[in-house]
Amino acid sequence: MAATQTVTTDGRFGHDRRVTLPGRFALASGQALPGIDIAYETYGTLNADASNAILVCHALTGDQHVAGANPRTGKPGWWPRLVGPGKAIDPARHFIVCSNVLGGCSGSTGPASLDPATGKRFSMAFPMITIRDMVNAQARLLDHLGVGRLAAVVGGSMGGMQALDWAVAHPDRVRSVVAIATAARHSAQNIAFHEVGRQAIMADPMWQGGNYADNAPPAAGLAVARMAAHITYLSEAGLTAKFGRRLQDRTVLGFGFDAEFQVESYLRHQGLAFVERFDANSYLYITRALDYFDLAAPHDGVLAKAFAGTKTRFAVVSFTSDWLYPTAEARRIVRALNAAGAAVSFVELESPFGHDAFLLDAPEMVRVVDGFLRAGEQ
Amino acid sequence: MAATQTVTTDGRFGHDRRVTLPGRFALASGQALPGIDIAYETYGTLNADASNAILVCHALTGDQHVAGANPRTGKPGWWPRLVGPGKAIDPARHFIVCSNVLGGCSGSTGPASLDPATGKRFSMAFPMITIRDMVNAQARLLDHLGVGRLAAVVGGSMGGMQALDWAVAHPDRVRSVVAIATAARHSAQNIAFHEVGRQAIMADPMWQGGNYADNAPPAAGLAVARMAAHITYLSEAGLTAKFGRRLQDRTVLGFGFDAEFQVESYLRHQGLAFVERFDANSYLYITRALDYFDLAAPHDGVLAKAFAGTKTRFAVVSFTSDWLYPTAEARRIVRALNAAGAAVSFVELESPFGHDAFLLDAPEMVRVVDGFLRAGEQ
Repeated sequence: MAATQTVTTDGRFGHDRRVTLPGRFALASGQALPGIDIAYETYGTLNADASNAILVCHALTGDQHVAGANPRTGKPGWWPRLVGPGKAIDPARHFIVCSNVLGGCSGSTGPASLDPATGKRFSMAFPMITIRDMVNAQARLLDHLGVGRLAAVVGGSMGGMQALDWAVAHPDRVRSVVAIATAARHSAQNIAFHEVGRQAIMADPMWQGGNYADNAPPAAGLAVARMAAHITYLSEAGLTAKFGRRLQDRTVLGFGFDAEFQVESYLRHQGLAFVERFDANSYLYITRALDYFDLAAPHDGVLAKAFAGTKTRFAVVSFTSDWLYPTAEARRIVRALNAAGAAVSFVELESPFGHDAFLLDAPEMVRVVDGFLRAGEQ
Repeated sequence: MAATQTVTTDGRFGHDRRVTLPGRFALASGQALPGIDIAYETYGTLNADASNAILVCHALTGDQHVAGANPRTGKPGWWPRLVGPGKAIDPARHFIVCSNVLGGCSGSTGPASLDPATGKRFSMAFPMITIRDMVNAQARLLDHLGVGRLAAVVGGSMGGMQALDWAVAHPDRVRSVVAIATAARHSAQNIAFHEVGRQAIMADPMWQGGNYADNAPPAAGLAVARMAAHITYLSEAGLTAKFGRRLQDRTVLGFGFDAEFQVESYLRHQGLAFVERFDANSYLYITRALDYFDLAAPHDGVLAKAFAGTKTRFAVVSFTSDWLYPTAEARRIVRALNAAGAAVSFVELESPFGHDAFLLDAPEMVRVVDGFLRAGEQ
């Protein structure tokens, strides 16, 4: 077991609050980690009967700073419209917990952590992780924080997968689940896009089989991976509305390979900015965890069986223009929950912003979550 | 001007029939090439009044071998269901011409050609080309072949863009246009996907600013570019039907970074196979030509003006699951043609196969093209 002081993540990404959870941590793959660190934030106060805890789960490239500024970047939390004073998830009413996922690069144990057996970074010797492993690490964190049963688990995208998996893995510890812009499995197309990103990273000679130096990451490959993924977070209509065929810093075509179109410049910026805040190996491991996700797989492909006997209430939200996790996937979840006799409310919201809609201004989504959570608190 | 004997393309790709068209070839960018070579195939015989010529235009990664085997690879032509004896485009009735596009790598002048001014490959000194330049090069080839007016220009995807542009650039030389699975402009999302591919190639250190050796191309970058593009040629439903979440050569998850899912293995194969048959710099130039394509741009964005006064007949075909050039783009073309008073027939065909549908078994498409061409021959 590594002590808190000696386990570090890539220095570029760092951490804030972190707990070392000692003891062998068993993984879905059959492998194990020799203790794990989890970086997390909390907001608000756990009430006397420990009944007001809400776990917020982040997406692929998110972190524990769901509300309030990220102390390193100074940027605001990633879900300010939903989480914060006076919001649907409110520190005045809730004890809000958000942790960096296992495998991540914002303070929790991941491939950039030091392997106590060697004293070097795990890199590609890090064991493969799954959504279930992320959930079990969160459960250990909640044990540490004195939270037995959660009032709710709330998440979008990969965060929504964790929320759904909480109800499957720890049914007695979850009163309510809010799963937004998500799916109960990764589709072939989802896997295909992730594979492009992984191949881009692994094709970068700077990747060095995962053993890149801190100051020499596979930046070009990671940027390309982010660019490809970023397209899937937006919609065709949204891209057209935002950029169309407008030119960047010019009025006529330049007939060169510079970024001539605004959309090119935007994508390049997205790629470069991502390299500053994310670890390439973490990207490999977390995309793989997403690809492995298929709640129905252990149940002969019958999703309803995964939720059999559930007492958890569910709210499922999708967005019309989300083609990464389209409404059809949300409906599949809802059908399975109905078949399992679960209490479930479902809404598809109009939005032109694609998958990213859940992170943007979505007042209807906020109202849905607020109403659902308040109903559960009565 | 380079003589036929000395102008070569990348030796891996070669050529078969090729004509050197001497004299300065002016380009849309304002630059020029000192003469061009065009590699082409013909099938059938030009009739006495030279009225039975059909030009078939290939897509981004196609070549001149539309019917019958490619003499180098031994593989069958790329559109055997539409072009060939007894097919809708039939060498018994038509004089069929198909040429490798300007900028290509299958024998026509492109970035891998030798620059007569230096005796070295053009590489990134090759001037930027456009769809209009491709069309004008085809017009020069048809001059050489004694074809004045075409019975039809037929193409899918980028080939459809050339077909549409033929009616705009050379209205008196085109009786009929068949534009399949295409658009009159590249959308922001189209540009975005191409930019990912270009960045993947240019991020590969083997690219060397375009000056890679013949036996050391930027294979990894080009493979990633192809993988990303290939996803856009298929549909989510098609990928699910073909691969779903099925595993490759295993029955349980391997928890590693090998290709565990069939869709990963398929995509990797697509990437690797592409490197064997395509030049990375050509990919950069041709994707750029596609991104520049916007028939309405010289007409204040009013597409109908591009077709003003046209006497050409048009058939426009789209496929329900094509999200690269969706039916909405086909309808935009049809509306503009209607506004321009053109004779146009339009059909959206059901297919689960996405953009690639036009290259696959599509008997309805064949019937539409056959009927349209025969009506024009009466």
